[in-house]
Amino acid sequence: MSEKINRVVLAYSGGLDTSVILKWLQQTYNCEVVTFTADLGQGEELEPARKKAEAAGVKPEHIFIDDLREEFVRDYVFPMMRANALYEGLYLLGTSIARPLIAKRQVEIARQVGADAVAHGATGKGNDQVRFELGYYALAPDIKVIAPWREWDLHSRTALIDFAEKHQISVPKDKRGESPFSTDANLLHTSSEGKVLEDPWEEVPDYVYSRTANPEDAPDAPEIITIDFERGDGIALNGKAMSPATLLAALNDLGRKHGIGRLDLVENRFVGMKSRGMYETPGGTIYTCAHRGIEQLTLDRGAAHLKDELAVRYAELVYNGFWFAPEREMLQAAIDHSQEKVAGTVRLKLYKGSVNVIGRKSPHSLYSEKVVTFEDDEGAYDQRDAAGFIKLNALRLRLLGRRDRG
Amino acid sequence: MSEKINRVVLAYSGGLDTSVILKWLQQTYNCEVVTFTADLGQGEELEPARKKAEAAGVKPEHIFIDDLREEFVRDYVFPMMRANALYEGLYLLGTSIARPLIAKRQVEIARQVGADAVAHGATGKGNDQVRFELGYYALAPDIKVIAPWREWDLHSRTALIDFAEKHQISVPKDKRGESPFSTDANLLHTSSEGKVLEDPWEEVPDYVYSRTANPEDAPDAPEIITIDFERGDGIALNGKAMSPATLLAALNDLGRKHGIGRLDLVENRFVGMKSRGMYETPGGTIYTCAHRGIEQLTLDRGAAHLKDELAVRYAELVYNGFWFAPEREMLQAAIDHSQEKVAGTVRLKLYKGSVNVIGRKSPHSLYSEKVVTFEDDEGAYDQRDAAGFIKLNALRLRLLGRRDRG
Amino acid sequence: MSEKINRVVLAYSGGLDTSVILKWLQQTYNCEVVTFTADLGQGEELEPARKKAEAAGVKPEHIFIDDLREEFVRDYVFPMMRANALYEGLYLLGTSIARPLIAKRQVEIARQVGADAVAHGATGKGNDQVRFELGYYALAPDIKVIAPWREWDLHSRTALIDFAEKHQISVPKDKRGESPFSTDANLLHTSSEGKVLEDPWEEVPDYVYSRTANPEDAPDAPEIITIDFERGDGIALNGKAMSPATLLAALNDLGRKHGIGRLDLVENRFVGMKSRGMYETPGGTIYTCAHRGIEQLTLDRGAAHLKDELAVRYAELVYNGFWFAPEREMLQAAIDHSQEKVAGTVRLKLYKGSVNVIGRKSPHSLYSEKVVTFEDDEGAYDQRDAAGFIKLNALRLRLLGRRDRG
Amino acid sequence: MSEKINRVVLAYSGGLDTSVILKWLQQTYNCEVVTFTADLGQGEELEPARKKAEAAGVKPEHIFIDDLREEFVRDYVFPMMRANALYEGLYLLGTSIARPLIAKRQVEIARQVGADAVAHGATGKGNDQVRFELGYYALAPDIKVIAPWREWDLHSRTALIDFAEKHQISVPKDKRGESPFSTDANLLHTSSEGKVLEDPWEEVPDYVYSRTANPEDAPDAPEIITIDFERGDGIALNGKAMSPATLLAALNDLGRKHGIGRLDLVENRFVGMKSRGMYETPGGTIYTCAHRGIEQLTLDRGAAHLKDELAVRYAELVYNGFWFAPEREMLQAAIDHSQEKVAGTVRLKLYKGSVNVIGRKSPHSLYSEKVVTFEDDEGAYDQRDAAGFIKLNALRLRLLGRRDRG
Repeated sequence: MSEKINRVVLAYSGGLDTSVILKWLQQTYNCEVVTFTADLGQGEELEPARKKAEAAGVKPEHIFIDDLREEFVRDYVFPMMRANALYEGLYLLGTSIARPLIAKRQVEIARQVGADAVAHGATGKGNDQVRFELGYYALAPDIKVIAPWREWDLHSRTALIDFAEKHQISVPKDKRGESPFSTDANLLHTSSEGKVLEDPWEEVPDYVYSRTANPEDAPDAPEIITIDFERGDGIALNGKAMSPATLLAALNDLGRKHGIGRLDLVENRFVGMKSRGMYETPGGTIYTCAHRGIEQLTLDRGAAHLKDELAVRYAELVYNGFWFAPEREMLQAAIDHSQEKVAGTVRLKLYKGSVNVIGRKSPHSLYSEKVVTFEDDEGAYDQRDAAGFIKLNALRLRLLGRRDRG
Repeated sequence: MSEKINRVVLAYSGGLDTSVILKWLQQTYNCEVVTFTADLGQGEELEPARKKAEAAGVKPEHIFIDDLREEFVRDYVFPMMRANALYEGLYLLGTSIARPLIAKRQVEIARQVGADAVAHGATGKGNDQVRFELGYYALAPDIKVIAPWREWDLHSRTALIDFAEKHQISVPKDKRGESPFSTDANLLHTSSEGKVLEDPWEEVPDYVYSRTANPEDAPDAPEIITIDFERGDGIALNGKAMSPATLLAALNDLGRKHGIGRLDLVENRFVGMKSRGMYETPGGTIYTCAHRGIEQLTLDRGAAHLKDELAVRYAELVYNGFWFAPEREMLQAAIDHSQEKVAGTVRLKLYKGSVNVIGRKSPHSLYSEKVVTFEDDEGAYDQRDAAGFIKLNALRLRLLGRRDRG
Repeated sequence: MSEKINRVVLAYSGGLDTSVILKWLQQTYNCEVVTFTADLGQGEELEPARKKAEAAGVKPEHIFIDDLREEFVRDYVFPMMRANALYEGLYLLGTSIARPLIAKRQVEIARQVGADAVAHGATGKGNDQVRFELGYYALAPDIKVIAPWREWDLHSRTALIDFAEKHQISVPKDKRGESPFSTDANLLHTSSEGKVLEDPWEEVPDYVYSRTANPEDAPDAPEIITIDFERGDGIALNGKAMSPATLLAALNDLGRKHGIGRLDLVENRFVGMKSRGMYETPGGTIYTCAHRGIEQLTLDRGAAHLKDELAVRYAELVYNGFWFAPEREMLQAAIDHSQEKVAGTVRLKLYKGSVNVIGRKSPHSLYSEKVVTFEDDEGAYDQRDAAGFIKLNALRLRLLGRRDRG
Repeated sequence: MSEKINRVVLAYSGGLDTSVILKWLQQTYNCEVVTFTADLGQGEELEPARKKAEAAGVKPEHIFIDDLREEFVRDYVFPMMRANALYEGLYLLGTSIARPLIAKRQVEIARQVGADAVAHGATGKGNDQVRFELGYYALAPDIKVIAPWREWDLHSRTALIDFAEKHQISVPKDKRGESPFSTDANLLHTSSEGKVLEDPWEEVPDYVYSRTANPEDAPDAPEIITIDFERGDGIALNGKAMSPATLLAALNDLGRKHGIGRLDLVENRFVGMKSRGMYETPGGTIYTCAHRGIEQLTLDRGAAHLKDELAVRYAELVYNGFWFAPEREMLQAAIDHSQEKVAGTVRLKLYKGSVNVIGRKSPHSLYSEKVVTFEDDEGAYDQRDAAGFIKLNALRLRLLGRRDRG
């Protein structure tokens, strides 16, 4: 707290926590606060944030409210989806992928307004602090970073609310008591964790879900959809061309309706502990299933298997916050190289919590009925070649067998 | 065909194809045929195979019918499941994992009866020929291998049936016409491929499924079950201790009922082409979901992430038939090392095609509510440590940023 | 041999073996042979090949002699060196990397002259047949490939020489007897294998070496040189700018003089057996040492470690002949992405078989004396950050320790 | 400094720095200090440490001096050498591998004497603090760790010497001035870094080397030696059986004489910065060369290539201090599995800084002259198999080529 700060760009949602942070920064650092509120598709009104910032004394020209939805999906979500990245085999990285974009925009604003610091509202126990700050440091190595949750003593809800009331920050009714869990949301997903979710043996209560129907309440009839891809990215739903964010939003609606994309997970945080969370990624779950479907038809085996190996590392890097690290960019270069001919149409069935590929076609298909058929294939494949193929693949095992099992 | 063979052990199902092969071997090689029929849980009566073999002139002491179900699940399926192996991200390797055991037993019988050759009924275009033969060669490097489908000219169904009729091999009515697809089955799964499945844009017809209910016809109420694990392997269902094969069979019943484990896949064969298949792995799908669930709680992050990277390679090795290769054994040694404390209970919800973990507990849990909680954790974790953690993780990115973005 | 061939492009050295192949192709296939002789820096006169081809009846416009040295180093050797690729930890892939270029040029010529086939002189036991043919098939999927050594019966030297004499092919004196070993050479290396080298316990006889002085006979005084790099590639020696092939040739001279780059290796061939070879890679050994030296200063740790992991796979792909496979290209894309700032000067000491980096500097250095110094670094690095860094890295191990060692 | 400590086990060399630490601990924490001095083959007398500890008031029963040389080589160096681990392609990890053993023994002593803390003399900028402390925390999760260099203000040499003189700690003459570099030594290696080495463009001055002759001064005649291996570990030199530490010591003598094992390296520290160091690993360099030599003959290709990929990760884990982490143990399990038949004899030539394998033989050799020979191999290998092998390996590339280059 001892560093001298003149102007700080705060990632500001307008909610209670970041409103307290805004005030706390002004007081503690006696500095000017610049607020940055991003629309990443979290589904909240952003204009109230402007009013609150103004009320807290932020200059109008220091209030930034940006719609980043298209940039988010086009430059962050889709590139990640090209990798089929799943953290710990299951998690679609919905929170992780949003942080680098916020960090990048904060740094841009800091440059624009001549700020010497940035601040965020993530706690000292989670991954998000790491993701924000690795982003800041990578893009602005000498910027000062303030993480109020690691500095202040307002750790209990009571202390926080006391501070708010003392400083005329309005406290919504539902924030007065202890919230039974906390959430993060954007166009890709909503995550929930904490309190009622902390016992990993207990089922996630139904009221925690906000983005998806309970599969048991979903329609009794399946719905068939198609997604078109071009160069590894989705471009159309049911034949209708859509921008990246529009497509993801439309898939979210479908996923919500059919109860798709719920995940109850115990995961390993980068900061070293296990946590239990619940994720809802309706559109992303459909999208990633479709992407694998079109890759099946259009990716060569060597490319596909290499991708599968790289994807584990890629997912770990994104989860840990290393989006702007050269190794993530190297993996992206490899992955993107593979996607040029990943194009075509995937047919999917949505039904009560499930999404399954039921058909796929492509102008760049590598699948050949003529080669694969049981019937005579007119010389496309000579079965006798298989004998030599097996013999040479077996040679080292035979030499080994003679030595070890002889 | 020119090699001199005295006695050959044939992997014999008793069906039309292997019955033709039996006769063809006797004729072509003028040799004694020993039949080996394995019960791997494929759900067919095996005694008819004995009668047919006898009818074909096989000596009674040369007819081997073995129940390998427990060995199959205990020594092949479960070790593979410890790896969470998924070929190309999706396929649970149900066919692949059965072949090494059949090969191993064939080689044992060959030694016992003094045979100098082994034979199988896999075609020259598929993966199974490779899996069988790599197994044979690894375990008996100097054995002769006969793959009739690569040698003979009975490639059309008509030619095969003509041969059968000419040699008094009974041809079941449903085999007279062209079968619309072919299948392979064992306790872990049933696979289907060929003809009606060859257009990857066309949905798999409902009549192809044999092991699972259509999710739309599955019960309207979800079912909650528990699976207990010990040292990485399942040991009980709903609290009732079960042997490996019994457990898998019971999970198969549950999966069948709830329509779980269907997969429509275009995959890359080891022999170089893409093929489209449909897999039903009801119990295995439930099991692998549960195994990941108990690992979430009991595996250290370093172990878990290393496992995820190794699993891609492991799955490729199993798929390609390298079960008895040293690199598969090395990976198994690493994976098994990680499983000692993978123990506890997983609660799962089965519903209309889906299986989801909804709770897990373990005497060896590494999850600590005390550490993870948002509330005061009595010094279990010092949030200020995070600042240093981030700073040093960021250091290289800052040095890089100064150079490249300065 | 039964396929009808009209015109075939033969990779033709003008030596005894490919001269016999030329004649054998004309006779066996009754086809027109087009010869292609490449200068890859193997150090032989190429014009004699023209005369011999003419003498064998090849039309003048069907004799292709190309100087590919610059393309070889610029587009094959240097990109590979960016990866620091070492097969089985030691081998610099000198033979492997030349084959794709020869294959590519053969295919281009085949298209130009309307040939329907290509042929090479590699034997049926080695890796080169694979490398040539994977190149052919990747670039010209439907071309016919003739590998005479796998087809004919001229396997003994006597049979070969008889054939040559019968067809007026001149047999050099030193080819009449059995050669004590065989070699392959290009600008990057000379490999030797066979006969006198086949016992891996016996030291390689001194007369086998042709490209390097015996270190014991090398100068008694070390020589200091510098190599400059730009974007990961060498551009100058001792401050003098040079083209890729010129630079490699100059390094070869230095390596020869100082006895650098000898390697006695037992390696695993792709076709399944172990072989013992001797490699001389004088310039390449110096170059790769220098490249690592400049990377040390300019590559970020994340990029460097990822590269080291990818390099193992990359080397295996190049060795096995998968240069034109998408997975090699993906790895190349990742590697190339890392090389943009790999620039600067490396100082090396050459002395009696050794090459060692003794200094490196770069305008893009990431090394910071200010940060690393034991002395006060004026706040560039706060040692207290290390405590938090260690604490959080240790957290999972502590939770594990409490469980397992408590 | 605020924690209450009763008794602390200090890793104590008896040198100036740890003597100051001893006194500082007593003063600052008002606690009992237990000293632990390990003989890891660093080549220093240990008894003086006892006298100094006594003089500083340490109780005789609290002075521990252990000869850990055999345990060090047998349980740490050799297992690591089985992996052929090289950090960043070059560094044999001599410092890294010693730290876990010291940490383990410190924790054992802490338990024995009822200490509640451990302390070490590593600085806050290096890797060793991480290696020590990860070891402590893994083995004793709740122990207190004191790292004086991160806590005190004695960062300048002057301050340190003032403190020493004030507390009657004898300051050797050569420690009065600024030492031009600092070193760490054990049976495996000596590392040097700091001051005169900090400019990576400047050659390491000759006086920095202490463990190896300058190659230019090494004998003019090469020396041929043999090393015997059993189960992946060295067991004899020139036919004479030796314990692990004895063997390594004997190889050190040979390496010293012939100037083998010098390395000038710029490396990436785990704490985020680059540093420049010089390593001398005479015996280890010979040993690792020999180990690769015997593996060439006895390891299957699949095992060898998997090992090469795992080795990169393994080396990074050891370097970063994760010896007691489960992922290191998993990799070790895989590696050890591969070593059972790694046995035989390697012949090496030592000459003026170089070590090269010139021969290897083994009762478990997988190398077969019969299979590899150019001559007729009596059916051990059918060259025609290669055609099928290539055809099927090429199939996917052909399908791809038809699509993309057609």
